[in-house]
Amino acid sequence: MTELVRFGISIEKDLLSKFDRLINDRGYTNRSKAFSDLARQELVKRDWVEGKEVAGSIIMIYDHHKRELVNKLMDIQHDFSGLIISTQHVHLDHDNCLEIIAIKGAAAKVQKLADILRAVKGVKHTTLGMSSTGKGI
Amino acid sequence: MTELVRFGISIEKDLLSKFDRLINDRGYTNRSKAFSDLARQELVKRDWVEGKEVAGSIIMIYDHHKRELVNKLMDIQHDFSGLIISTQHVHLDHDNCLEIIAIKGAAAKVQKLADILRAVKGVKHTTLGMSSTGKGI
Amino acid sequence: MTELVRFGISIEKDLLSKFDRLINDRGYTNRSKAFSDLARQELVKRDWVEGKEVAGSIIMIYDHHKRELVNKLMDIQHDFSGLIISTQHVHLDHDNCLEIIAIKGAAAKVQKLADILRAVKGVKHTTLGMSSTGKGI
Amino acid sequence: MTELVRFGISIEKDLLSKFDRLINDRGYTNRSKAFSDLARQELVKRDWVEGKEVAGSIIMIYDHHKRELVNKLMDIQHDFSGLIISTQHVHLDHDNCLEIIAIKGAAAKVQKLADILRAVKGVKHTTLGMSSTGKGI
Repeated sequence: MTELVRFGISIEKDLLSKFDRLINDRGYTNRSKAFSDLARQELVKRDWVEGKEVAGSIIMIYDHHKRELVNKLMDIQHDFSGLIISTQHVHLDHDNCLEIIAIKGAAAKVQKLADILRAVKGVKHTTLGMSSTGKGI
Repeated sequence: MTELVRFGISIEKDLLSKFDRLINDRGYTNRSKAFSDLARQELVKRDWVEGKEVAGSIIMIYDHHKRELVNKLMDIQHDFSGLIISTQHVHLDHDNCLEIIAIKGAAAKVQKLADILRAVKGVKHTTLGMSSTGKGI
Repeated sequence: MTELVRFGISIEKDLLSKFDRLINDRGYTNRSKAFSDLARQELVKRDWVEGKEVAGSIIMIYDHHKRELVNKLMDIQHDFSGLIISTQHVHLDHDNCLEIIAIKGAAAKVQKLADILRAVKGVKHTTLGMSSTGKGI
Repeated sequence: MTELVRFGISIEKDLLSKFDRLINDRGYTNRSKAFSDLARQELVKRDWVEGKEVAGSIIMIYDHHKRELVNKLMDIQHDFSGLIISTQHVHLDHDNCLEIIAIKGAAAKVQKLADILRAVKGVKHTTLGMSSTGKGI
């Protein structure tokens, strides 16, 4: 069971009313959740910058027609098998594949894997979805 | 078959040697791929800013113990079923789930869905992996 | 006189202790200031995305030896004189100048001016420091 | 005199035509400048991440009515005098000041200074304009 604590915040009136409108637009129904999320976002960003253990996804777009490419991507992923949890593959259209690799591990290694995949001929775009292992946040 | 074209670039000597070192560190074996990737990255960023059709993933971390939460997340996803391709679920530890939703559609709608999911009580972190449909890049 | 209001936040105990450590590392002595700053940061980001009136700076690095360049940059800045408040110039070394243009106006126009300056031959780097007019935050 | 070198790039035809449209919208008249700028942008980003010597600006918004604040900001800036080149001050309106500090030094120190300034009571927003010393780019 997660323990909740309560504390008070003093904030400028104008700022609070602007903030209330902002979080309302984003679908929040209470400030505690919105504030907690801002706090967590800062913690997650820091974990990535400081190279802590993180989780998230590597997203790739590539053209599967180059058969060598698919094998190459497979080989690379096996070299990083400790980092990769599983892979989700989507056939976007006749040519383009969207591949989403769920990852968990040291941030620098994740970045390294993304760099290596991006550099492969035939891979059109590679980006990171930077999230957290959820521990302690 | 993708058609290649060739053209010349004039660049300062120092800049080129620094750039060569940078892309070598990132695993590239030739400049054409590295330059193409930089060009594609700019195009993908613009598609997101201008609200074009995009693809990618929404990544969430949440505590599955709150059973209402799992149902709520399921309901929301069904409301956006036109946007969602498929979902990959990872049991990170006893409490934390990593859920990665593959998406394709208008950038503003994807952002909206991410906002709605983030605001749900029990969801600890939500972020976007911003990629492309691959069309024309 | 700015009016302060006070309200309560419920937050998970672990998250709060992690957040307290984070803000302590960043030099904060109380949570109210840290939370207010996170709120303001979100508001400022939204103002830029939504094209509201903003303030901040355009930062450029260029080599002043190309005399035509200095004149060209001057001409461009005069075309946007309604946007530019003042300019600060630093002689970084024998070749390189750092020019910091204080700006206030519609976000899209500021972006446009930065784009135009970046495209000028001899300008090595252009970036934006995105801040706020301070109104209502 | 900066030495130019010339080399060839092979790129997919569709990608090149999309890229040409993008850089045209951004005011570029030739690809060499646009490609050089993308290369420089990557180098500058890496300098900041790796804590190299950088240049740029710290931008602050604050309410000058709190006289203690102005003195405090002055004291802090003197503690970092080796990092600060000069300061540009703008009276945005009756209450709000925009202060732009030109900086040059180690990226981590610049970040530290920005953190300390942000945490001061009365400072509404602090952000970094991340540029380069211009050396070798």
